[in-house]
Amino acid sequence: MSDLPKRIHINEEGPREGFQIEPGPIASADKVRFIEALAETGLKKIDCVSFVNPRRVPGQADAEAVAAAIRKRPGVTYTGLWLNMAGLERAMKTQLDLVGRMGINASDTFGKKNTGMDRAQIADEQRKYIVKYKELGLRVESITILTAFGCNFEGAIQPARVVQSIAEGLAIAAEGGVSIGSVNLADTVGWATPQAIARVIGAVRERWPDMRLRMHLHDTRGTGLANAYEAMRLGVDMFDASCAGLGGCPFAGHKGASGNICTEDLVFMAEEMGIETGVDLDRLIECAHMVESIVGHPLTGKVMRGGSLTKYRQAQAAQ
Amino acid sequence: MSDLPKRIHINEEGPREGFQIEPGPIASADKVRFIEALAETGLKKIDCVSFVNPRRVPGQADAEAVAAAIRKRPGVTYTGLWLNMAGLERAMKTQLDLVGRMGINASDTFGKKNTGMDRAQIADEQRKYIVKYKELGLRVESITILTAFGCNFEGAIQPARVVQSIAEGLAIAAEGGVSIGSVNLADTVGWATPQAIARVIGAVRERWPDMRLRMHLHDTRGTGLANAYEAMRLGVDMFDASCAGLGGCPFAGHKGASGNICTEDLVFMAEEMGIETGVDLDRLIECAHMVESIVGHPLTGKVMRGGSLTKYRQAQAAQ
Repeated sequence: MSDLPKRIHINEEGPREGFQIEPGPIASADKVRFIEALAETGLKKIDCVSFVNPRRVPGQADAEAVAAAIRKRPGVTYTGLWLNMAGLERAMKTQLDLVGRMGINASDTFGKKNTGMDRAQIADEQRKYIVKYKELGLRVESITILTAFGCNFEGAIQPARVVQSIAEGLAIAAEGGVSIGSVNLADTVGWATPQAIARVIGAVRERWPDMRLRMHLHDTRGTGLANAYEAMRLGVDMFDASCAGLGGCPFAGHKGASGNICTEDLVFMAEEMGIETGVDLDRLIECAHMVESIVGHPLTGKVMRGGSLTKYRQAQAAQ
Repeated sequence: MSDLPKRIHINEEGPREGFQIEPGPIASADKVRFIEALAETGLKKIDCVSFVNPRRVPGQADAEAVAAAIRKRPGVTYTGLWLNMAGLERAMKTQLDLVGRMGINASDTFGKKNTGMDRAQIADEQRKYIVKYKELGLRVESITILTAFGCNFEGAIQPARVVQSIAEGLAIAAEGGVSIGSVNLADTVGWATPQAIARVIGAVRERWPDMRLRMHLHDTRGTGLANAYEAMRLGVDMFDASCAGLGGCPFAGHKGASGNICTEDLVFMAEEMGIETGVDLDRLIECAHMVESIVGHPLTGKVMRGGSLTKYRQAQAAQ
């Protein structure tokens, strides 16, 4: 059945995407404890903090303190986010394992509302990043296409628009002498359905058959795991996800809306289909309970309540 | 792409499956108000109450009162559940639109724990139902196969076991001179993944190519909508679902675990893929908020928080 990958690679976004929207305050020590517990589950990539304006995002004001306190586990990559050069400079002074990132908005209106810049200005900004990454010796890993499936301002996004945005990003990278092998398709405001996933992936593959794809899927309307499944069916093997479903979309403008797909639900679905994740689901469920107790309110993950199937299988094996 | 149906038919289970596990008490008038609001959304089939032992399920002690109070909307079918002959007799005295149901457990251990009867006894019980349904002039609509994808006691259920259970049910029906055209595959305790869905549907179709299938999917571990999508991809066009995700599995033994897939999330996914549901999503979202306020605690539906896309589309159209 289809092109299901043998293994998927998960980029854990919980600490970064999650803590930034929590009303908080969350103690830095709790953030570190959560990040260190995640690293014990088998997750190999953890997005830890955002180097953003502490006045605008008070929940990330302790980014440096958190980054400094993490006892790094060998083999695990600890990343961080920045939205401008000042943030990148801050990130460079930490022990985090930085990789260069580019971002292009499929929707110009979303880009403008989110960054204050128009398409040409955002492109110029990306050019500056490429120069800076080279200067700093940072490998540029991927281009993220934001609002790749829909936008609250522009509506459904045509696959051709995504292709155009990728082409633009690749051209900017190429101008700077940088080659990029991976594209991150982001359903930033939760518009995607499996059908839209298939259409966009199809359009991208038609133009760049060997481009490695990563999905960043917001579960705003419940279709997140169905969308991830469709992407897997089409051979995609890299996914962003958030432990316990921690986080939400700060741009969506509706309180309580879900953020990224839930990591342990994704791990459950993949492993039960024979797709390796390298993650110990039961340990990850413990992390989900830990972070729920840290933030102090119920989170939206399902497997953390339903439980894994381990105990049932063990009871059966013991018979 | 695949065999996606043009239209799906949704059986709303919220009032029946949902209210029976709420710690309550829920006023009968609130139940009626919710059922009547659901009937205004375009949903054509609503499972309203259970005629079960009020000492065991106090939340359904008012089944007759609720059934009597509903102002029925023409074209909508209002159903109820019974688990024994006494329940059926009670149901027959109401204004509900009853259809005969059969139930066979793919897992014998689950059947035993759930009903106190072994496989042969459950089969005998089904024979008695067939006789009774004929006597009462009730059409027998479908056979439900419980635990069709996995069981907490017996583990993963092999597709051959599901096929065998269906064959058993059809034989019992045939003995009584009843022909059945539809099978309801129930993931009673939330073990299914899209892969398991495809395997079981494939095995059933191989034996009975024209059998109409219905899915009853519990979202215990977050895969519910992905499973529904896979079933749609394979042409299945009948789904049970529960408004706001109301309900939970009383058998699962873990507090807070989800019940049926959420109706409005299913409607969102289907309609956004061009599959008609006949349901007005925005009115259904209002029902979800209504029932959340009736039960007095947050429910797990996602679209009820994320919102439909109507307002964005309208804003765009007005530009």
